[in-house]
Amino acid sequence: MTRPTSSPDRLAQARKAAADADIDALLVTPGPDLRWLTGYDALPLERLTCLVLPAQADPFLVAPGLEVPAVLASPVGGLDIEVLGFGETEDPYAVIAGRLPTVARIALANRMWAEQVLRFGGLWPAAEQHLTSEVLRDLRMRKGPDEVDALRLAGQAIDRVHARMAEFLWPGRTEREAGREIATAILDEGHVTVDFVIVASGPNGASPHHEVSDRVLEPGDPVVVDIGGTTAEGYCSDCTRMYTLGEPPAEFQSYFRVLHEAQLAACASARPGVTAESVDAAARTIITDAGFGDAFIHRTGHGIGVETHEDPYIVSGNTQVIEPGMAFSIEPGIYLSGRHGARIEDIVVCTDDGIERLNTTDRDYVTLGA
Amino acid sequence: MTRPTSSPDRLAQARKAAADADIDALLVTPGPDLRWLTGYDALPLERLTCLVLPAQADPFLVAPGLEVPAVLASPVGGLDIEVLGFGETEDPYAVIAGRLPTVARIALANRMWAEQVLRFGGLWPAAEQHLTSEVLRDLRMRKGPDEVDALRLAGQAIDRVHARMAEFLWPGRTEREAGREIATAILDEGHVTVDFVIVASGPNGASPHHEVSDRVLEPGDPVVVDIGGTTAEGYCSDCTRMYTLGEPPAEFQSYFRVLHEAQLAACASARPGVTAESVDAAARTIITDAGFGDAFIHRTGHGIGVETHEDPYIVSGNTQVIEPGMAFSIEPGIYLSGRHGARIEDIVVCTDDGIERLNTTDRDYVTLGA
Repeated sequence: MTRPTSSPDRLAQARKAAADADIDALLVTPGPDLRWLTGYDALPLERLTCLVLPAQADPFLVAPGLEVPAVLASPVGGLDIEVLGFGETEDPYAVIAGRLPTVARIALANRMWAEQVLRFGGLWPAAEQHLTSEVLRDLRMRKGPDEVDALRLAGQAIDRVHARMAEFLWPGRTEREAGREIATAILDEGHVTVDFVIVASGPNGASPHHEVSDRVLEPGDPVVVDIGGTTAEGYCSDCTRMYTLGEPPAEFQSYFRVLHEAQLAACASARPGVTAESVDAAARTIITDAGFGDAFIHRTGHGIGVETHEDPYIVSGNTQVIEPGMAFSIEPGIYLSGRHGARIEDIVVCTDDGIERLNTTDRDYVTLGA
Repeated sequence: MTRPTSSPDRLAQARKAAADADIDALLVTPGPDLRWLTGYDALPLERLTCLVLPAQADPFLVAPGLEVPAVLASPVGGLDIEVLGFGETEDPYAVIAGRLPTVARIALANRMWAEQVLRFGGLWPAAEQHLTSEVLRDLRMRKGPDEVDALRLAGQAIDRVHARMAEFLWPGRTEREAGREIATAILDEGHVTVDFVIVASGPNGASPHHEVSDRVLEPGDPVVVDIGGTTAEGYCSDCTRMYTLGEPPAEFQSYFRVLHEAQLAACASARPGVTAESVDAAARTIITDAGFGDAFIHRTGHGIGVETHEDPYIVSGNTQVIEPGMAFSIEPGIYLSGRHGARIEDIVVCTDDGIERLNTTDRDYVTLGA
């Protein structure tokens, strides 16, 4: 469904990085690494599809025969990658072993399935198994201008959905009903897939990854709306805003101010040269000092690109230095079990001297007619 | 989103099967095995969620602290499973290793990610790594009455979408436009997720896993519509029917008759005691004898349950004996590269003396107004 940005340059960069890491070859099954390397958004199937990227030889892609037309119609068709189809009763692992008879160190896609990992382990019992992240992490984490452009478009698309929230939320309907229409809006406003729709009203807002339920929205409810999708270019959006159905509880108004201040402070702290954990600390200090430290039960953010969650993670203990081109969320939250909760989330990208926010709707809570 | 059928019995059956296979414990990350065992449709995240099911001790589930409310709101909350949340800077692998200090043979969920497989490999370097399919395959493959009921409901839901196809397909609109509306109908007619939408018109019909494109539907086009979703009970639908926009090419009409005969023959051949490959052969012989053998480029079918594709596979070389309760697709196809293609697919479940078709719309092609 997606037509991601892709480039022969990425394959060349990955081969060089593999050689530098003394990895003989990358084995890349369907998932974000394959999309990033080739633009091919392959179906994850029980039949093996695997890009083999040797450090010292030409890449090839093994795919089920019936998928070959889809492979060639994908951006792979425009890259210099040999495509090897196999029949329903042929063994694709034998094809790969035939071309890579000796392997000392192999890198497996982080998202490769265990059943494939064990098969590859059996092919080269003496080989060290590594992960593609060891080779691709730095390349994927530093977005090029085309990737920043794609993330900006994704951010604008999800902002347009948030701007329409009055169409979807009102007392008397269920979270599920609202979520259905929000999902349609995510597609209508410029995504090709809906990745997640969180409509967490009232007490459900205290569960950060609540999705939707049959709870009926009530007057006075705070509602966490955290939504995202993937655009045709293959890049992800992810934005959380708070809504209230009429006047929210005084307690909510009080801690929301703390949260709002924390989110702005974390955004203000992010710039080239600071660590990921310092951005987390910028938000956490304000929330903790206000007495809500125990209610901020998750990290401040995650990287984003062809995956919704990827490096760099904005979390205590992560000393990764932020550099221009890194894109990540800044999303502190406060969750009061059994009552309600709040989160504010922007995607930002590090610039030469600070950050650019890719979500630009107002971060205050929005009161909708009750 | 889903509320799958689940049962303490399944956990007990799995523990017994693990003991019989001399497996110390199953490690089950988010995916179909976790849904089947517990009903928990967990988000696949970079943070570890893992059900640990020791053969000789009580099960426990390790999950990120922020997911614990979602875990307890899921069917896991009604099962006798201890839930262990971990904080953002804690190591969940250490939690598991602390409870399972010595392991000789461990079974990893088939869909577990490589990054998790390698971490577990590091925990117990001397342990043999196996797959959960070695323990769960037979249990999952033989559906109980509740599972057959759930699959029947899924089949009826997707049949209702096919019955509405005149609302979606007409010359002048694109496959993508039709696909969007079909996806909405899949939800409206009784699924909670859309798993795939194939609208393959004209030459695109020759690519079995084509999804949708910007190709405009034309008068005379044969159109392959292969669609499926997952119901609230957590079971999948999958049904293919052929449509033509007015009078299709004579060549299509000719080979469609062969295909129709082959699909009916495969259905007639399926019953307790025959092998999976014999059902494949029943369809393939007819297509091959008519001169289209090279155009039938995939196996005849796949099992279905909490996954769209699972055991038993209806393919040459698979000597699995079909038994009552096994559910699978029967979906021969004929694909003429560059011209068009056709497939007819029913989900069937093996009964005591034959099969029940879970898709019951007419298998002939349906001509829609052009």
